Amino acid sequence: MAALECFAENGYHATTTRDIASRAELSPAAVYVHFPSKGELLYSLSKVGHQAAWSTLRNAAGSEADPVARMRLMVAAFASWHARNYRLARVVLYELRGNSEDRREELVRFRRRFGEAFETEIEIGVKEGAFDVEDVPGVVLAILSLCIDVARWYSPSGPRTPTELGDLYGELILKMLGVEKSAI
Amino acid sequence: MAALECFAENGYHATTTRDIASRAELSPAAVYVHFPSKGELLYSLSKVGHQAAWSTLRNAAGSEADPVARMRLMVAAFASWHARNYRLARVVLYELRGNSEDRREELVRFRRRFGEAFETEIEIGVKEGAFDVEDVPGVVLAILSLCIDVARWYSPSGPRTPTELGDLYGELILKMLGVEKSAI
Repeated sequence: MAALECFAENGYHATTTRDIASRAELSPAAVYVHFPSKGELLYSLSKVGHQAAWSTLRNAAGSEADPVARMRLMVAAFASWHARNYRLARVVLYELRGNSEDRREELVRFRRRFGEAFETEIEIGVKEGAFDVEDVPGVVLAILSLCIDVARWYSPSGPRTPTELGDLYGELILKMLGVEKSAI
Repeated sequence: MAALECFAENGYHATTTRDIASRAELSPAAVYVHFPSKGELLYSLSKVGHQAAWSTLRNAAGSEADPVARMRLMVAAFASWHARNYRLARVVLYELRGNSEDRREELVRFRRRFGEAFETEIEIGVKEGAFDVEDVPGVVLAILSLCIDVARWYSPSGPRTPTELGDLYGELILKMLGVEKSAI
């Protein structure tokens, strides 16, 4: 998508509607028909990005009954989503303040679901004796941060595919959760 | 520092030399005397940031003989530096492409030291039997990412002080490195 490419390459502020139109081989007027402002475009990308990451995480959470296997899948899915969609995620993350205040609040509210989903899973695993965690919000923070930051540094020309990275992070997070090596 | 405040609040592209001068209560001409361009200012902040983070990490690495205690201190120091200096780190990280290509390469070269320092420590710990790690570059990646991403989300109004966050991350990384709970 032309807007995404322009925002990702040059940053939101340095991109004009003219740049987006030129990349999309459209006239600026044609872009304005769909998106009356650059802000509308950014908001639309932000919503698409958040919803796509959320449905990826929900699908992973629904796919396994065992808490260890489920957590591994959730982390792998969330981390690899940020690798596969690193350009979209970068724009959504770093241009959050390009959104108006009420839209920013709406997005921040939506983002809470991710932490809540991991928190619920960890609490189930602790209750079932699968995880050994003292500071649940602390581990949730680390899981979210590790997976989301993939968007900052990931490059398709690097040594790991999104799937390989997801597998690595799934394993590392299980260790953080106190899962015995023999159970990983 | 006025430039740092402006870049951190509004982003590099949306900041003008006039904004910086106004924040610093100087004339734009007075700012130009010290920094002939906004690019010089960004480069100067980038160098200061990288060198400060590096000397913090080196000090931590030199302070303990035991690999487990040393790694804990290094992670805590590196993570808490990014919390304490989150505004500076944010500008340095997210405006990297605001630097000219040769300066960007110089900064990227400098950044390799951080990964190398952690890699060396992990290899020592594995050799001494303190750590149990299969994929050393993978864990290095996770340590750097977790500590650096602090700059993105940290807020002084949040629930953890920089020191508390450093302690949490020191412990979580030791778990990732396969250190037994009893030794943490």
